[in-house]
Amino acid sequence: MAKISDLFGKPIAVVNVGLGSMAQPMRDQNVPVVELEWKPPAEGIKRLHMTKTGIDMDVANEEAIKRIKAARPVLVSMGKAIDVIPGYHGKLFLHAGPPVTWERMCGPQRGAVMGALIYEGMAKDEVEAEKIASSGEIEFAPCHHYHTVGPMAGVVSPSMPVFIIENKTFGNKAYSTMNEGLGKVLRYGGMGPEVYERLSWMEKVLYPTLNRALASIPDGVDIKALIAQAMHMGDECHNRNRAATSLFLRAMLPALARTNQDNEVLAKVLEFIDRNDHFFLNLSMAAGKAALEPAEGIEGSTVMTVMARNGTDFGIRLASMPDRWFTAPAGEVKGLYFPGFTEDDANPDIGDSTITETAGYGGFAMAAAPAITQFVGGTPQMALDATQEMYEITFGEHEGFTIPILNFRGTPLGVDVRKVMETGILPQINTGIAHKKPGVGMVGAGILRAPEKCFRDAYEALKEL
Amino acid sequence: MAKISDLFGKPIAVVNVGLGSMAQPMRDQNVPVVELEWKPPAEGIKRLHMTKTGIDMDVANEEAIKRIKAARPVLVSMGKAIDVIPGYHGKLFLHAGPPVTWERMCGPQRGAVMGALIYEGMAKDEVEAEKIASSGEIEFAPCHHYHTVGPMAGVVSPSMPVFIIENKTFGNKAYSTMNEGLGKVLRYGGMGPEVYERLSWMEKVLYPTLNRALASIPDGVDIKALIAQAMHMGDECHNRNRAATSLFLRAMLPALARTNQDNEVLAKVLEFIDRNDHFFLNLSMAAGKAALEPAEGIEGSTVMTVMARNGTDFGIRLASMPDRWFTAPAGEVKGLYFPGFTEDDANPDIGDSTITETAGYGGFAMAAAPAITQFVGGTPQMALDATQEMYEITFGEHEGFTIPILNFRGTPLGVDVRKVMETGILPQINTGIAHKKPGVGMVGAGILRAPEKCFRDAYEALKEL
Repeated sequence: MAKISDLFGKPIAVVNVGLGSMAQPMRDQNVPVVELEWKPPAEGIKRLHMTKTGIDMDVANEEAIKRIKAARPVLVSMGKAIDVIPGYHGKLFLHAGPPVTWERMCGPQRGAVMGALIYEGMAKDEVEAEKIASSGEIEFAPCHHYHTVGPMAGVVSPSMPVFIIENKTFGNKAYSTMNEGLGKVLRYGGMGPEVYERLSWMEKVLYPTLNRALASIPDGVDIKALIAQAMHMGDECHNRNRAATSLFLRAMLPALARTNQDNEVLAKVLEFIDRNDHFFLNLSMAAGKAALEPAEGIEGSTVMTVMARNGTDFGIRLASMPDRWFTAPAGEVKGLYFPGFTEDDANPDIGDSTITETAGYGGFAMAAAPAITQFVGGTPQMALDATQEMYEITFGEHEGFTIPILNFRGTPLGVDVRKVMETGILPQINTGIAHKKPGVGMVGAGILRAPEKCFRDAYEALKEL
Repeated sequence: MAKISDLFGKPIAVVNVGLGSMAQPMRDQNVPVVELEWKPPAEGIKRLHMTKTGIDMDVANEEAIKRIKAARPVLVSMGKAIDVIPGYHGKLFLHAGPPVTWERMCGPQRGAVMGALIYEGMAKDEVEAEKIASSGEIEFAPCHHYHTVGPMAGVVSPSMPVFIIENKTFGNKAYSTMNEGLGKVLRYGGMGPEVYERLSWMEKVLYPTLNRALASIPDGVDIKALIAQAMHMGDECHNRNRAATSLFLRAMLPALARTNQDNEVLAKVLEFIDRNDHFFLNLSMAAGKAALEPAEGIEGSTVMTVMARNGTDFGIRLASMPDRWFTAPAGEVKGLYFPGFTEDDANPDIGDSTITETAGYGGFAMAAAPAITQFVGGTPQMALDATQEMYEITFGEHEGFTIPILNFRGTPLGVDVRKVMETGILPQINTGIAHKKPGVGMVGAGILRAPEKCFRDAYEALKEL
């Protein structure tokens, strides 16, 4: 009975609100000590309540949260980007994050654009691809401008098949490509024959197989329900999607069997998905996008509806100003690297996958996914802390997504820019790490915080509403 | 900042070693208070160290734990009980728990025997089935006497297909039937046409489909690896098997596709497994049995290798006395009931599924499965407590099965009868609840403790070794 922790049949922790050194005796007994992340409001930050036009921001935020929670994103169909994404055309290439020109594009995003040009047959090799990409004949636009979200480089080109997620509550649709897996893949900027062959197989074999099965499921696949279940199964549905990928497969299986035309093709499709625990990520992202868009345009709302990075800039948008990006330089990711790579190889933070945190899961639900720390680093205690802290800067909680270990509390939902500025607490993000050079691919995964400048600028803009 | 729990960005708890009332101020602030479950050693209990023959019990237990941890249970094949279980014959019916005669058999176990006689075509109706069952012409024996484990009533009859799990480290095999699902099913004592039709479909369609796929997987399916992964996905692999069932499906899918002979049959097979999150339970159980048997026969070991109930008696066996049952009356389960049922309908504790707790998972790994409390009752905090407490009565920890939220600590493994007697802490069990009358089926699920008498009798027997 020498140690407190031995005496006590469970994890214990001690609050330390004062100086860190005061807790040293507890640390000496291996009792986890949590430094309370609290500081007085940043100087000069006053709570904003009303817009100049007399709109109560809290009332506006209630409406935003209500709409996001009411969303019911369902996978209804698939199609090629050029055929199904409104406004798409043959020279339009989408990318993750806020707007960026070819000149300012980071390595992996350039790699993904060049790779997509080769995959499309628009360039014969990397030299020609670079020439075309820099010539001005390709239109680049953020995925977010087209109801779309793309992980990492987030490049969407005309022939790529996309999932179509319909928010059944509001009727709006969102889109995302299929996940290629980890390693040397296009979305991490990977280039090479194996990358194009995989994309081609996904277009010619995987997509028709999945779409044929989907067409035989009249109600589609309820992605929100899968996320909710997966959150009871150790996923946070951003960097851990093992359970959700399994549940998605289960939801598709009978239809895949009934629409089967070739056993070997079906086997290869099942193997491809089974070997990629991140397959669900793109569905999780598009579901988040579909859930958030109905909150866009609510006057006076201080809730964030977009958070995205292009590897050069980090950008956010608010419900009350849905067309305006508030940007800052993309941050450095702290994480675990694949063998042979170090942080010197890492590109800054990249991808639209932070739509998951924006929609109340991902890094905000890390407490539901303690095993994720084996992939992104940190400890299970840090995973618990990350979620608990996010309640400080969110306006609501998502009762549709509950965390068992927190006694089934709803996840923190809807980052309130005012609270970020008042507390100085920045949103928690889980992410993959791309090599900074075009053509290499994934080198690791990790965690970081959103940059403060985006929120400061947004806060200043809120004052002017 | 009124409440301590508000101040603190995470679940906090307070140790109370003294009088319960001392912690009242903390409870008033909604801080969870845990009463330390500690009491002085039971009167007259001395630590046993050596057998009379001079064997060091700790050394013996080290060997037992080493063998259990080294186990590698793999699903290699399937077959009908009469064809593959050594010593089986046409009039042999196995049942869960320690030996029991027809006269002393509880309602659901009688129901399962009668139902199995009708399913086998040995009786035309329940009246005839009861006559045959009570006539003495059927031989009843515990599953455990035939390297087999059966959930709930645990009845195995000659034509039933069984999984064959081989412990690749030691070469021994264990067996279990396929899981029927919940509700009115044979293993809960359910009788009626829908029960027999389901069993018949499982024998004629499900079994050949799975077995054909299995035959095309040269290395079989590594069940230990699936349990280890599922424990990072919210399962404890006794009463929660949603992740494990998903992972098992994923492991089988490419082979199921490649050996497919009829799309509609394959679709029905996939639907059947998808609709039963407990499908993996029987595999989890047989894997536990296969892992534990090599520890049987280690002289001087005080580690428990069998814990099982027949709904009338609860029985345990030790590594050092593998042929001797120590029994006590089966306990009452405290749990959640399906609509329309109450604890008045409940049969006492029943089934071989406690092989999971014996092998270091199930109720012993509840901390890995906080969401299970929605099925068996209790709170996530109780789930954490249950696991933590089991470390007090186990001899080892299973590094192969780790619990993320406990910082990836191995599960408590190998109940040491001496520690049970010294601490007064009894093994924690999760279980389903059967209706006490034959023919009805499942009425709920819950938790309970093993009865003390088994351990006291075993402890006395250890003194005589």
